[in-house]
Amino acid sequence: MRFAAALVHHPCLDKAGNIYTTSITNLDVHDIARSSRTYGIDAFYIVSPIEAQKALGHAIVDHWKTGKGATKNRDRHEAMARVEIVHSLEDAIAMETAALGEAPMVLATSAKMSEGVLTNAEARERIAQAAGTLVMFGTGHGLADPALAMADATVEPIAGRADDYNHLSVRSAAAITFDRLLG
Amino acid sequence: MRFAAALVHHPCLDKAGNIYTTSITNLDVHDIARSSRTYGIDAFYIVSPIEAQKALGHAIVDHWKTGKGATKNRDRHEAMARVEIVHSLEDAIAMETAALGEAPMVLATSAKMSEGVLTNAEARERIAQAAGTLVMFGTGHGLADPALAMADATVEPIAGRADDYNHLSVRSAAAITFDRLLG
Repeated sequence: MRFAAALVHHPCLDKAGNIYTTSITNLDVHDIARSSRTYGIDAFYIVSPIEAQKALGHAIVDHWKTGKGATKNRDRHEAMARVEIVHSLEDAIAMETAALGEAPMVLATSAKMSEGVLTNAEARERIAQAAGTLVMFGTGHGLADPALAMADATVEPIAGRADDYNHLSVRSAAAITFDRLLG
Repeated sequence: MRFAAALVHHPCLDKAGNIYTTSITNLDVHDIARSSRTYGIDAFYIVSPIEAQKALGHAIVDHWKTGKGATKNRDRHEAMARVEIVHSLEDAIAMETAALGEAPMVLATSAKMSEGVLTNAEARERIAQAAGTLVMFGTGHGLADPALAMADATVEPIAGRADDYNHLSVRSAAAITFDRLLG
């Protein structure tokens, strides 16, 4: 069973609901890479179509993956070793398909409830049965329709005790999702 | 049932195991405040004995709590409204005791397994029975003995699938802990 995650900077939504490309941030990469490694995730894709953003992604990751940081901090190296900077979600899915020999099951996440979402128990069962899974996390105001259209299913939103408020950072949401689906 | 969290910058451990005071970081405050609000936590204490650090904490929090940010971004205001900058863990416990009318149950968290830790199920049961609970998160290389000595119990560490690696950020660890204990 292979499991991968994608942090999606495009196509996402802005506040007004338009399609939008967000910026890569250093701490998202570090935090989610560390969570990914802790939960044994096989690949963590950072998705951005902007060349300058991909260069920034490489600057963040490659220092620890192959550069001076690789020997300086082995724990950080291990977290970064499975991070891939990719141009599009299609590229991430193609890389997973190549690794698996078949297309992965693609799961979307969302802060909002919608019809037909999988419960965590259902998602865990499907993950156990799938050859491989790719779970997508949106940035900005969430995944836009073209990203959602690539998903086989959406996992139920994380809802805390305070039902009216769900403004987790994507770093926190990814950590909780990994724990729920793989913990 | 009241529930509070404390992000402890002192007394923590450094790499060599000595007692150490870590720095307040902007993103820890924002992320854990947002997670706290999502899980309906009543108070989130930032603990540092250093005056300049407390001033930094106030600069981060007060902008959203009472300053210009309070009306600009209500979601962020709600997250920050329950954040308190305090001098010591003793002060955090005293404030919770004042709010409750009795001392809270104090829970420690740790990345390392130790004897007698509570399972998550046991911790949930104790939290449900307690008038109030304060859960402590260490920074740096974790909570030092004087902090652990204030705890009534320690919650089992978060262990992912990859059992040999547990290097979550405190932001991610707090999010997962809230989900396990309160979700």
